[in-house]
Amino acid sequence: MGNIVIGQSGGPTAAINSSLAGAVSYAMKKCDFENVYGMKNGIKGFLEGNLINLGDILDDDKIEILKLTPSAYLGSCRYKLPEDTSADEYGRIFDICEKYDIDCFLYIGGNDSMDTILKLSRAGEKRGSKVKFIGVPKTIDNDLPYTDHTPGFGSAAKYVATVVLETAYDVSVYDVKSVTIIEIMGRHAGWLTAASALARCGKSAPHLIYLPEVPFSKEKFVSDIKKAAETENNIVVAVSEGVRGEDGRFICESYNNGTVDGFGHTQLSGSGKVLERIVKEEIGCKVRSIELNTVQRSSAHLLSKSDVDEAFGAGEKAVEFAYNGESGKMVAFKRNSNAPYQIEMVAEDIAKIANQECMLPQEFINSEGNGITQKFMAYITPLVTGEIYPKYENGIPQYI
Amino acid sequence: MGNIVIGQSGGPTAAINSSLAGAVSYAMKKCDFENVYGMKNGIKGFLEGNLINLGDILDDDKIEILKLTPSAYLGSCRYKLPEDTSADEYGRIFDICEKYDIDCFLYIGGNDSMDTILKLSRAGEKRGSKVKFIGVPKTIDNDLPYTDHTPGFGSAAKYVATVVLETAYDVSVYDVKSVTIIEIMGRHAGWLTAASALARCGKSAPHLIYLPEVPFSKEKFVSDIKKAAETENNIVVAVSEGVRGEDGRFICESYNNGTVDGFGHTQLSGSGKVLERIVKEEIGCKVRSIELNTVQRSSAHLLSKSDVDEAFGAGEKAVEFAYNGESGKMVAFKRNSNAPYQIEMVAEDIAKIANQECMLPQEFINSEGNGITQKFMAYITPLVTGEIYPKYENGIPQYI
Repeated sequence: MGNIVIGQSGGPTAAINSSLAGAVSYAMKKCDFENVYGMKNGIKGFLEGNLINLGDILDDDKIEILKLTPSAYLGSCRYKLPEDTSADEYGRIFDICEKYDIDCFLYIGGNDSMDTILKLSRAGEKRGSKVKFIGVPKTIDNDLPYTDHTPGFGSAAKYVATVVLETAYDVSVYDVKSVTIIEIMGRHAGWLTAASALARCGKSAPHLIYLPEVPFSKEKFVSDIKKAAETENNIVVAVSEGVRGEDGRFICESYNNGTVDGFGHTQLSGSGKVLERIVKEEIGCKVRSIELNTVQRSSAHLLSKSDVDEAFGAGEKAVEFAYNGESGKMVAFKRNSNAPYQIEMVAEDIAKIANQECMLPQEFINSEGNGITQKFMAYITPLVTGEIYPKYENGIPQYI
Repeated sequence: MGNIVIGQSGGPTAAINSSLAGAVSYAMKKCDFENVYGMKNGIKGFLEGNLINLGDILDDDKIEILKLTPSAYLGSCRYKLPEDTSADEYGRIFDICEKYDIDCFLYIGGNDSMDTILKLSRAGEKRGSKVKFIGVPKTIDNDLPYTDHTPGFGSAAKYVATVVLETAYDVSVYDVKSVTIIEIMGRHAGWLTAASALARCGKSAPHLIYLPEVPFSKEKFVSDIKKAAETENNIVVAVSEGVRGEDGRFICESYNNGTVDGFGHTQLSGSGKVLERIVKEEIGCKVRSIELNTVQRSSAHLLSKSDVDEAFGAGEKAVEFAYNGESGKMVAFKRNSNAPYQIEMVAEDIAKIANQECMLPQEFINSEGNGITQKFMAYITPLVTGEIYPKYENGIPQYI
């Protein structure tokens, strides 16, 4: 057997390195690859021949730390390969594959990364190349189709729900009517915002959830808040950054006309700030908005054990698939049962997945369009279950 | 013996309930109080006679959960008692003390809460009241004088440092020059912002730290960034929300003139946004600012064991002091040694502490005014050491 190369691409998550750890560990121990290479900064680095020999760097101890390290160990990129598979880039890529005697090519990433795998496997087929191309899903957005969920989502969901819960405790201390708006990542799909509902274990917050899947109406929002205020003192609202109005435009665009900063620049504030201003204008009570920001995707100090283990398993499985001759596939999760939670990993055709988005289905959204259903809770709970903590030294997590 | 009443006041922290748990547990088990009362929403609730009997509610199991629950279990308030101790409020307070046969009055809080203890102890003395008044410090700001540090600070510091570390990992994945600015709480003192330096265990981030104790100069900031950019690809900056210019004004005020939102309102953005705009204007590279917001003070999912244990101990000690007849005092930490870390708890005169602020001393700030010293690292490390985790059910922390 020749060699295997692994890359990471797209936005970092808390679990993408667990998939890398799984792939490296499986490739080193269960297969007879000569070398296990990593590409620096994804396909962009690969095109520059920027490969490192992971066998020289990663031993068992380091693989264990890597499993719980956030961000992308190999670095990442956002690079779209040309549509035309006879373009120069492909020539260069297959030259480098030949030079490094690559048999298997793994790419860990989201929608765009699966597009890379699709194009490479097509280009390889045309060229009669021996290289097998396999994708490993990762995205906190959970928006890949033909898989029950994606690694990285469970840990981000656990972090979001925990922070919403803790914020609900925080805002409940004063005896004053208040609205707290928490803006959550997800430009197109509402999975992560919906996950905030897990915080309801103790408190009733979040009382309202606004998703990109439901067209936003200012009037309905104001009436939702007024209704909640009848019974609640401290209202907590979860809102996706990707919420759009009836006209299909992001509310952070349509409600921001004319916002100008001290330098005279037009500013785009988030959807949370938009809701904050609406509450100020229409309700007039104490209001604050919080943006969770990138911490959502890198909170390795608060991981879902289920997610980390599955991410590791997906990395292993990808190597197994490629080693056994599969190509142009992505490792997908198929859920066989909710209770007990049981999944299997299958190889799904990448052409069905690449560049597609999977939105929150109607059955997971309540009829009012401002919350989620019990069905969604049954879906998400197993994905956040279990805890696994990084090692700490002098009080600070040790990452690789 | 009669009864004891305990209240919480000011902003919530992740450890204030640990002090409550310590006080309740000590009062129930080690003293012969008839009843252990809690005041709802601090002195404001007390004035309305809003007391609850904690003995009816809190058993050993619940005290254990309370110890790791964020926010203020009894609710909080921001209420300043009048200067004139012959004012009506005091009459009402001592009437309620008499009605409930209160011997000891504990108040857990920051600067303002210590002012409450000061005034009450003075008013009590004048009246010849038997009530003993003791303060228990808590503030993530760590800005109380005559104590080595305050409960709540260690856990907030650990959270801030961890998030800065994870953000440094997050921003390092792309091969593009970038500046990331993280705004940290602390309106007057820079302790919590300085704590971000703990993230340097693995990476070199944060590369620059801006504190309220050092007057901000735009020119110096721009030159700091340019210098850092010579050797670093992804620069991480920690900035206190309370940074001020040479003129003594908050930079988020002086650099925001004319910022107007879509409704025509003047907006005050944070110091992070100000630095972000300066980088955009003067450097022009990729820049992003992140505001850590209230999660800093309520992140019970990431606690310093040292902090939680000391907070619990401070609650116990306060009861012991009051029970033994001390009044008009605050429980203060005296550090006897750094290695091994060793503190003792003493009763400090509340008059020296109330309404005072303790800034980061010069010896903890580097000569350039854009970072901290090794002396500060030796000071802070023991405060964030050790981990203690809440119990999780179905993947979500269980709080009380």
